Amino acid sequence: MEEKRILVLTTGGTIASMDGENGLSPERGIDIIGLANVGAGFSVDVHEMFRLDSSNIQPEEWQSLAIEIDSRKNEYDGIVITHGTDTMAYTSSILAYMLRGIEIPVVLTGSQLPADHPLTDAIANLHIAFTFAGSGYPGVFIAFDRKVILATRAVKARTRSFSAFESINQNPIAQADARGLVFNTIIEKTGSYDFKPDLCPDVFLLKLVPGTTPKSLQMLIDAGYKGIVIEAFGAGGLHVFRRNLVVELKKAVEKGVSIVVVSQCLYEPSDFTIYEVGRMALSAGVIEGRDMTSEAAVTKLMWALGNTKTPEEVRTIFNTSLAGEVTLR
Amino acid sequence: MEEKRILVLTTGGTIASMDGENGLSPERGIDIIGLANVGAGFSVDVHEMFRLDSSNIQPEEWQSLAIEIDSRKNEYDGIVITHGTDTMAYTSSILAYMLRGIEIPVVLTGSQLPADHPLTDAIANLHIAFTFAGSGYPGVFIAFDRKVILATRAVKARTRSFSAFESINQNPIAQADARGLVFNTIIEKTGSYDFKPDLCPDVFLLKLVPGTTPKSLQMLIDAGYKGIVIEAFGAGGLHVFRRNLVVELKKAVEKGVSIVVVSQCLYEPSDFTIYEVGRMALSAGVIEGRDMTSEAAVTKLMWALGNTKTPEEVRTIFNTSLAGEVTLR
Repeated sequence: MEEKRILVLTTGGTIASMDGENGLSPERGIDIIGLANVGAGFSVDVHEMFRLDSSNIQPEEWQSLAIEIDSRKNEYDGIVITHGTDTMAYTSSILAYMLRGIEIPVVLTGSQLPADHPLTDAIANLHIAFTFAGSGYPGVFIAFDRKVILATRAVKARTRSFSAFESINQNPIAQADARGLVFNTIIEKTGSYDFKPDLCPDVFLLKLVPGTTPKSLQMLIDAGYKGIVIEAFGAGGLHVFRRNLVVELKKAVEKGVSIVVVSQCLYEPSDFTIYEVGRMALSAGVIEGRDMTSEAAVTKLMWALGNTKTPEEVRTIFNTSLAGEVTLR
Repeated sequence: MEEKRILVLTTGGTIASMDGENGLSPERGIDIIGLANVGAGFSVDVHEMFRLDSSNIQPEEWQSLAIEIDSRKNEYDGIVITHGTDTMAYTSSILAYMLRGIEIPVVLTGSQLPADHPLTDAIANLHIAFTFAGSGYPGVFIAFDRKVILATRAVKARTRSFSAFESINQNPIAQADARGLVFNTIIEKTGSYDFKPDLCPDVFLLKLVPGTTPKSLQMLIDAGYKGIVIEAFGAGGLHVFRRNLVVELKKAVEKGVSIVVVSQCLYEPSDFTIYEVGRMALSAGVIEGRDMTSEAAVTKLMWALGNTKTPEEVRTIFNTSLAGEVTLR
């Protein structure tokens, strides 16, 4: 059997970290793959993109990654990206939109302990990432702690456990057990490859608290944000009494700002049609985030704003599942 | 045996909702207790406070509730508050601070389906709330889906399931099973009753996304917020590269704004000492939120700002567990 050709792109993160005077920082580049001693049975090329704590990975890095993947994907059976866990779910989501319909597996992974730690999870995580990258299963994914999660469904839910990521509102795509890699779902291919690396980073994530003022919404509009994702209460609530947020939302929508509403609950969908307060928000013209994670919604809004000219087009994009990020009714 | 005296304060919420033309809205007052047919074996008084969707319960309602409880607590063995689920964890947290050291149980409950729905969870939830309110176990709690959670550890994590709340970074205080009400922990009493209903609502919750700008932090400071809770990435990360948030944080702290940092991961503590990027934030003078939930941190900051004159006093309060909300090293 011919060896699968895997391209590894390193970006830093805990997996590449060493302990210094000032705490852990990502000091390693391509040597992490040798260090972890994975890749046997694969033909592996390693390319260093960045040495960044993933807290420092931002829209500019997303674009560089997407462009690198686009330019090299035809030479490989799969791509593995090593990445810090902190913002991995944001990076995976935006890559899923930018590389929509990609024909090969693109698998992000990382670790909770550095690759040279005796208890590291880096080796196991790289093993499942390589295996999945060689599987031929197309799309963007996170492989972590023996699970493979669709890029747009992952959330980092735990700061310490090896089981850092959860697959939200959808089962993991696959997991490893005594049978090897076991697939749970077959996702339909969402159409032909469509590379679109543009985005607009002028998006604000507003997580409501009781007492959030209409003035703070006004302030965001005045500051020039083109899009706002609101993490509302429960299935879909926000103040309409005393501090009336709906009035400001309406004004914002009229000014052409795209407003997407999701739930601040980690699990289960939002649904703004159930409660009177939710329906008032919908009547203001906000876009329903349904069962999207905040990570998937924020990056989708950045991507939609970067690839459209009108709020109506943004709305149409949100009524479409680009990469499995949303369950449409 | 003498019947336990229970005061029920109704505030609205799904438990009190009826289905109208515009979706569910809280139309019921004290009749929900009769409707749910609970209270047998207790001597029950019911008092209607509000008929609000909990999305509309804000700092003003928190104060009214605290004042009502303070004025009537000596006549009762326990108090039950019926409340919408959406913001219940915020209300429970602030009441725990305002009513610190209260001698009787104060138990918030509600439901995912209205009390008159054939499948309602209202009855079971009221039963455990009443039982706990009669238990003599002092403090503020949420009773929901057969569990009792410390007020400051609860988060609404699910929009639909009856199991809406999770006890974060601590086991539930008690649960109901075939043995009745089973206690898991004994919390130490945190001192004598100290009623402090003041608060300052000028607190902003800033959940970071990759690309959050230093300018947006500046904007919040200019807007006059006295306190900001930052939901950072992972165990404790924020940008320092390209968009340097730490520089702005430092300026904010120097201006006397209290900045508390927590994790945007739902589970497990933040720890800003592990990574270089986290240590940079600490060196800017931010306050560590440790294992506090965002709900507990935001309300604690509002409470601390309402009861102190200087940022140093706020910091001291955050180095204290007022009501079990934080695990101090």
